[in-house]
Amino acid sequence: MPTEMAAHRIAAYGDADAFETDTVPVPDPGPGEIRVAVEASSVNPVDYKIRRGDIPDFAPSLPATLGCDVSGVVDAVGEGVEAFDVGDEVYGMPGGAGRQGALADYVVGHAGTFADAPSSIPLADAAALPVVALTAWEMLTDKADVGLGDEVLVYGASGGVGHIGVQLADWFGCEVTATGSTAAKRDFAATLGADATVDYTTTDVETYVSEHATNGGFDVVFDPVGDDHLETAFEAVRPYGAVVTTESSAAESLSLAPMHAKSLELGVVLVILPVLLGEGQERIGEELSDIAALVDDGALAPHVDERFAFADVAEAHRRAEAGDFRGKILLVNE
Amino acid sequence: MPTEMAAHRIAAYGDADAFETDTVPVPDPGPGEIRVAVEASSVNPVDYKIRRGDIPDFAPSLPATLGCDVSGVVDAVGEGVEAFDVGDEVYGMPGGAGRQGALADYVVGHAGTFADAPSSIPLADAAALPVVALTAWEMLTDKADVGLGDEVLVYGASGGVGHIGVQLADWFGCEVTATGSTAAKRDFAATLGADATVDYTTTDVETYVSEHATNGGFDVVFDPVGDDHLETAFEAVRPYGAVVTTESSAAESLSLAPMHAKSLELGVVLVILPVLLGEGQERIGEELSDIAALVDDGALAPHVDERFAFADVAEAHRRAEAGDFRGKILLVNE
Amino acid sequence: MPTEMAAHRIAAYGDADAFETDTVPVPDPGPGEIRVAVEASSVNPVDYKIRRGDIPDFAPSLPATLGCDVSGVVDAVGEGVEAFDVGDEVYGMPGGAGRQGALADYVVGHAGTFADAPSSIPLADAAALPVVALTAWEMLTDKADVGLGDEVLVYGASGGVGHIGVQLADWFGCEVTATGSTAAKRDFAATLGADATVDYTTTDVETYVSEHATNGGFDVVFDPVGDDHLETAFEAVRPYGAVVTTESSAAESLSLAPMHAKSLELGVVLVILPVLLGEGQERIGEELSDIAALVDDGALAPHVDERFAFADVAEAHRRAEAGDFRGKILLVNE
Amino acid sequence: MPTEMAAHRIAAYGDADAFETDTVPVPDPGPGEIRVAVEASSVNPVDYKIRRGDIPDFAPSLPATLGCDVSGVVDAVGEGVEAFDVGDEVYGMPGGAGRQGALADYVVGHAGTFADAPSSIPLADAAALPVVALTAWEMLTDKADVGLGDEVLVYGASGGVGHIGVQLADWFGCEVTATGSTAAKRDFAATLGADATVDYTTTDVETYVSEHATNGGFDVVFDPVGDDHLETAFEAVRPYGAVVTTESSAAESLSLAPMHAKSLELGVVLVILPVLLGEGQERIGEELSDIAALVDDGALAPHVDERFAFADVAEAHRRAEAGDFRGKILLVNE
Ligand SMILES: [Zn+2]
Ligand SMILES: [Zn+2]
Ligand SMILES: [Zn+2]
Ligand SMILES: [Zn+2]
Repeated sequence: MPTEMAAHRIAAYGDADAFETDTVPVPDPGPGEIRVAVEASSVNPVDYKIRRGDIPDFAPSLPATLGCDVSGVVDAVGEGVEAFDVGDEVYGMPGGAGRQGALADYVVGHAGTFADAPSSIPLADAAALPVVALTAWEMLTDKADVGLGDEVLVYGASGGVGHIGVQLADWFGCEVTATGSTAAKRDFAATLGADATVDYTTTDVETYVSEHATNGGFDVVFDPVGDDHLETAFEAVRPYGAVVTTESSAAESLSLAPMHAKSLELGVVLVILPVLLGEGQERIGEELSDIAALVDDGALAPHVDERFAFADVAEAHRRAEAGDFRGKILLVNE
Repeated sequence: MPTEMAAHRIAAYGDADAFETDTVPVPDPGPGEIRVAVEASSVNPVDYKIRRGDIPDFAPSLPATLGCDVSGVVDAVGEGVEAFDVGDEVYGMPGGAGRQGALADYVVGHAGTFADAPSSIPLADAAALPVVALTAWEMLTDKADVGLGDEVLVYGASGGVGHIGVQLADWFGCEVTATGSTAAKRDFAATLGADATVDYTTTDVETYVSEHATNGGFDVVFDPVGDDHLETAFEAVRPYGAVVTTESSAAESLSLAPMHAKSLELGVVLVILPVLLGEGQERIGEELSDIAALVDDGALAPHVDERFAFADVAEAHRRAEAGDFRGKILLVNE
Repeated sequence: MPTEMAAHRIAAYGDADAFETDTVPVPDPGPGEIRVAVEASSVNPVDYKIRRGDIPDFAPSLPATLGCDVSGVVDAVGEGVEAFDVGDEVYGMPGGAGRQGALADYVVGHAGTFADAPSSIPLADAAALPVVALTAWEMLTDKADVGLGDEVLVYGASGGVGHIGVQLADWFGCEVTATGSTAAKRDFAATLGADATVDYTTTDVETYVSEHATNGGFDVVFDPVGDDHLETAFEAVRPYGAVVTTESSAAESLSLAPMHAKSLELGVVLVILPVLLGEGQERIGEELSDIAALVDDGALAPHVDERFAFADVAEAHRRAEAGDFRGKILLVNE
Repeated sequence: MPTEMAAHRIAAYGDADAFETDTVPVPDPGPGEIRVAVEASSVNPVDYKIRRGDIPDFAPSLPATLGCDVSGVVDAVGEGVEAFDVGDEVYGMPGGAGRQGALADYVVGHAGTFADAPSSIPLADAAALPVVALTAWEMLTDKADVGLGDEVLVYGASGGVGHIGVQLADWFGCEVTATGSTAAKRDFAATLGADATVDYTTTDVETYVSEHATNGGFDVVFDPVGDDHLETAFEAVRPYGAVVTTESSAAESLSLAPMHAKSLELGVVLVILPVLLGEGQERIGEELSDIAALVDDGALAPHVDERFAFADVAEAHRRAEAGDFRGKILLVNE
């Protein structure tokens, strides 16, 4: 067993060039923790927001190893851990925010933040899932509690959270309307299970509500984009409906008047919360088990747009920040 | 059957002196509507906000008969109405916003906005219930979905919605902590079923959370007050908890950052919505039936602080706006 | 519009030769009813049990037109029916038990017993669905209330109800173990979505429980077969689990001791009940709408083993009673 | 700490005289167990059935200390137990079936089979609750899943399980109809919260269904009596309703035909199951916590008909078997 490993870290907040490859000690799992030999990670907006210094409360201590998503093989098991054995193939969300992350040869995290990886897709690809699938899952189940026949409007359907949201909502038996700014994005959404697609750049809310929603609006608006989408979400949702979102940046001065006018519900999801709090981590692993079961049953698959080696993480972040991709950008520990 | 009746109306928005007593034709029920000989109404904030001109979108057309709450006896039944017969004692929320209200000898409204009045309290007293009980009900069931053992913090526990909220949350098996600014208000909350009370003027949020909540915050914060209470609500609720409110006036520039930081849910209730929309009115009557059953089973009672004759509605509004009362102010058609 | 039509009827209970082709008046829809030009029907055990005289309480009055399942085109609409227009393609379960059935050129039934046919399969094939899909649906939702990750054992997985049960349980995210007496039947079950299959003729209950169930038994045992299967169902289910069944014939002298020993729940489904009672028919149409949505979303498909013309209904019944087929036997009104 | 204690045991199955008072070693708690200094126990049918030898599979090994219910003070805590400390006042259902019971100075059981005793009633009286309150709770929640407004028929409403069932069903907001063979029993049921009572010795099922049920039968029939009550239960329940029971003795040759005819659900509760299985005991403690909360909130109280000293357990059993009492017979460790 090596005592040192490579870690792709930032010594200070900055642009994508901030990443450096350092040699650091291999961490040991404490009680209740496991150590995982990292196969892959992926890029999520939370990663580059941390890197930029936009959300310092979420950042691991500097120098910081980023990377919230991970897949790999269990390599050591801390005291009191019964759920995993050395050699298990797992995926999880152990750190990258709140504590050191996955862009290294090994990562240590609370056992509750892992689950057995899906067996029907390559282990590396499983690293595309945790943050986006947990987010979409909590939006649709905990917050919106969607059911068969619900009409769901999905913004940003070709993005990380969105492309999982379309598949999950479809699997829950919802009628899914997906927005996309280009024909290619809308076609992609249709292949994921969207029953209808909308070019929101040329169609106003009133028009697509009247075409695709039957009760004066959608039962649920799924917004993984935030910004000004939240305003149109309140327009597009029906009276007594629900809006679920992940973002708060642009919502600094949100008016509640539209929520009052329609007697609405708003749910905001932050999946990394148990890692930040250092408690309740088991919910992550339990949800990842459910998600893995759906993947193995053919209901859900991550779409990987491009793969980068850990050494090329700067380039991967640049592509992610540019926004011109579908699904996820994977980082592989070559 | 008389063809004319007294109606207490406002010809224009204004202070409490705006009320005039007019003689107007007795209205006839259209298809799906009933006419009720009015026994009583009560004062809710929505009534004086309409009177002041604060929420013109909600106002009946001028000259406007206000009064959302009503109890009385069915006097005529429109075409297609099967749920009620002439002579039935009912209570409801047929108008006062969106259409003409109850401060008259007769009111006409959609049959779906009425239910059989509770049989265990005087018919007049039933008029203290609709707006506040429907609001508390929708906050606790539709929005917060409280269950046995949930820890619920109730703001404004001695007010109209609050004093019903305490009783309902207690009936649902919740652990209720109620806030009150005076010892008398807190004692009142305790008699309603609050398991603990808090003087929020001398106790900071962190302190009462650590004393009365076991998971780092309350499962649900019930806020019928709005204003700056919403900010402290986000402080007092636990991660993954829910805040339910009725108000949006002070929430013009709400920041969603606290909701994101705790992965929260926010529900905003507007009970009068089906009357404003002119559709889905049946939900009002169905909920009022459940509420009447709870009253008759001893689980819930309205507290009437003071009674005024319809002719003294101006005085009743002044007292309501001054805020120095507990439970409800009743208006009786003498 | 013709005033007479062909109806395939039995004048008295008997074997498959009892069917005769009669010319009878075309029935008119009463208030709340619709008339459907019949495209197809299918054979269910209830049909030949009625024909034999095994369940005379369920039989239409003699001479009786059998056939519970139907698909076709709306041809006339009774007073007060708003859900359907002439020309709509529908499927349903309007009669065949309790009132005259579908083996005729036209069938009349309560509008609530119909729904729009799935649009993604031929209209005739939709007639394979109502009885078996409603039965499987009510077993898994109303009675067993299955959820993601539940372990479900399906008996008779290649039969009418069973082959839909496997697909639905799989769609609900269950882990499905299916029994079958031949390799061909088990392969069929696997293609329907069964995660594991068992040859119950060579494997005892204890063995397949230990191989395929993780909590000392299956969460739910789905038994569309009855007979002695119910006894093994109580053996195969876990403590606090549920058994759902459709059959009672062999259960004349059931002992409740096994249910007591494991604190179990037993649900018995009779889908035709609203037709027999003449009330609550809307639940049929509502469930058929949900089922059609699943068909159109690719989650569910009927398997048609063989097709017979209405004129050959005797032969179709003989094949159904012999039991040597998979999925359904369709009857087409040629 | 004494090393020996008194235990009221049976050396062999027999009538009530079988009890002897023996001196035995004080047992030590193993890992995950606690030892409780016994304050009181109570008599349940399961106790005298075990004593008679009717259900040998449930009996502790002979010589057997009976008594399933217990209240007392925690006296020693086994390895790994964090939920309780020495000195805690608790109530529970640790043994009496499957393992040695409570009719002794000390009882040892799995920590999961205990909860903090209600604080608003005497500690001894809490021993009247576990078996009957857990049974009624699991019948109404797990099995029947009752809700506001459900019409519930309670057989044997003055008995052990029945008198809790009436209170709980009332608390859940159900309309409760209770049967009783004497005016005194029916009055007792009314004081417990029954909305209507029926003398089933003079009123046939059809009559009381038509008087007290609105949908052709009760939503739920709650039968803690068994015997021929189960047959009338199937008569009294509405189509698609649920029957919940505790008993199987008389149901040896139950016909499922009535369940099929109404598309019913049947739940059978055996509360002692986790003790017999030696797994899943936590559900007992969790339910007892909820029950204690209801007691302390005034929603539920055990009715103690008579109190006996442990030394008079034979007399207590005779009275219990005679059946002429209301609520519970308490056994106090004097
Ligand atoms: Zn779809
Ligand atoms: Zn309370
Ligand atoms: Zn599957
Ligand atoms: Zn009651």
